[in-house]
Amino acid sequence: MARFTFFGGKGGVGKTTVSAAYALRCADAGEETLIVSTDPAHSTSDVFEQSFDDDPTSVEGRDGLSAMEIDPEAEVEAHMMDIRREMEKQVSQVVVNEIDKQIEMAHETPGAYEAALFDRLIRVMREEADDYDRVVFDTAPTGNTLRLLSLPEFLGDWVDRLIEKREKSLDLYEKAAIGTDEPRKTAANDPIIHRLREREEKFEFAGRILREESSFYLVLNPDDLSVAETRRAVEHLGEHDLDVRGLVVNKVTPEPDDDENGRGARYLRERCARERERIAETEETIPVPLVARIASRTGEVKGDVLGEVADELAIDVAATP
Amino acid sequence: MARFTFFGGKGGVGKTTVSAAYALRCADAGEETLIVSTDPAHSTSDVFEQSFDDDPTSVEGRDGLSAMEIDPEAEVEAHMMDIRREMEKQVSQVVVNEIDKQIEMAHETPGAYEAALFDRLIRVMREEADDYDRVVFDTAPTGNTLRLLSLPEFLGDWVDRLIEKREKSLDLYEKAAIGTDEPRKTAANDPIIHRLREREEKFEFAGRILREESSFYLVLNPDDLSVAETRRAVEHLGEHDLDVRGLVVNKVTPEPDDDENGRGARYLRERCARERERIAETEETIPVPLVARIASRTGEVKGDVLGEVADELAIDVAATP
Repeated sequence: MARFTFFGGKGGVGKTTVSAAYALRCADAGEETLIVSTDPAHSTSDVFEQSFDDDPTSVEGRDGLSAMEIDPEAEVEAHMMDIRREMEKQVSQVVVNEIDKQIEMAHETPGAYEAALFDRLIRVMREEADDYDRVVFDTAPTGNTLRLLSLPEFLGDWVDRLIEKREKSLDLYEKAAIGTDEPRKTAANDPIIHRLREREEKFEFAGRILREESSFYLVLNPDDLSVAETRRAVEHLGEHDLDVRGLVVNKVTPEPDDDENGRGARYLRERCARERERIAETEETIPVPLVARIASRTGEVKGDVLGEVADELAIDVAATP
Repeated sequence: MARFTFFGGKGGVGKTTVSAAYALRCADAGEETLIVSTDPAHSTSDVFEQSFDDDPTSVEGRDGLSAMEIDPEAEVEAHMMDIRREMEKQVSQVVVNEIDKQIEMAHETPGAYEAALFDRLIRVMREEADDYDRVVFDTAPTGNTLRLLSLPEFLGDWVDRLIEKREKSLDLYEKAAIGTDEPRKTAANDPIIHRLREREEKFEFAGRILREESSFYLVLNPDDLSVAETRRAVEHLGEHDLDVRGLVVNKVTPEPDDDENGRGARYLRERCARERERIAETEETIPVPLVARIASRTGEVKGDVLGEVADELAIDVAATP
């Protein structure tokens, strides 16, 4: 059964709040649930007023709910150290020192952050997920991460051709030379081919989980920019065969009372009218159902307020993974 | 005299509105002004209710003001075509076809967009800028673009070493061989060294203009995320010796009238209180003066409303470039 749920959307739309509210609904429905946050601002710790780290921990006072926070920066560091160690095995110390600078630079490339984070999320799906019925992520793959999902195909062909060439040259080598099987052994254990196969298998696993055992929701706010970005995200996910199950409009401005008529009330009414237009546009132009509208709150969402948001979220937990 | 002004900030904070209002102030103060927009949503065309393209065009009804809109996507295309043409000169057609796929992929890398856009902005500073007293950009360099400013140093050393090695091998070649000066001629015209020198010179020019003839302002909204991002942007610009002259807080929620007391008024008062906290935090923790607070508007900013925003902006045009 599908059991992973991802809440995507641009920074600031309220993904963490919505994912926390959804995870709470799952736990309240009797599902053992893990919420995985990737927000470097530790907003999940804020929501539950409890500090989380890289290990799943029970959320106090919320039966059936655990949380973990992944620090993307720490993941990038670890990722780079892995690469360095791998290289040290294969080249001399002098080269390693030269290469360190390159790694430093690669660390700063825009893709490094996403790649390291995706690696960690795949590890959650493989390891931590085993102890739970549901795993809720406050992020969804975008841009470069989605492109990684096409890697297995691409990488598979490439590795096959690489091995084929390798075999041919080994055949020639054996025919030409000394009757030892030393070279063939080396090919079977070739660390580079081994790593490529490993990556191929890893992204194949991720693609399968994302396509067959996961649901995606996108969180947006009722403004032009957020609607346009959501439209692009739905298309982009679709191009990678990932279906978006629903849209959640968050931070909807509340209407004033009917008898309010001052400057503030006029401002709010105009603002609400604009937001209704954006929401209508969303429903007309994005082919994904709008599953919830959540009111804007002036205070932080935590404690009882999270329960209120969970009530407004109203995604049928039983029907969706 | 300094004459370039950049308005930076994350998508959605209102950079285009603020830059348009500032450009209007410059033009009204008697400076021949060009506003350069890089927003793919053509918001500058919306603000002035007139369609702009890649060529500077006078804004109707606004004396001394011209506008142009750069399409970053088109710039990436052109950039990639340039690279392709350059490569075709140097390798066989078979290799070009193989390489086309690589270019296709490079096109999608996150850095390509920024690099192509920065190239075009440098061209504006070199060419279009000549006809104006002031040039206002609705964007400021971030991330990878800032890193390009360190390229001249890095590239300079590298090219010097490359040429030195080249000279040495040519010396050996000449000592060893036939008395022709053919190889030396080739080195002087080496297309790769030529292009590296060109890039070195280009980014050197950009660095000089940005450090000596430009002012930077950052636009933010009074919320946690925007304040945190602005703090990082100020630090990042500072690391590259670019001083931020001022912060503009945009989309400040208006207070209700004193005698309003309904649900709407209560919501607005709480919201305004939260925003005041964010603004106080900004002033306490970011070492850059807050030069303007602009009220949130429910309708689109254009026509007379732009004039109102320009009045609220109140940056002294004469004192700043």
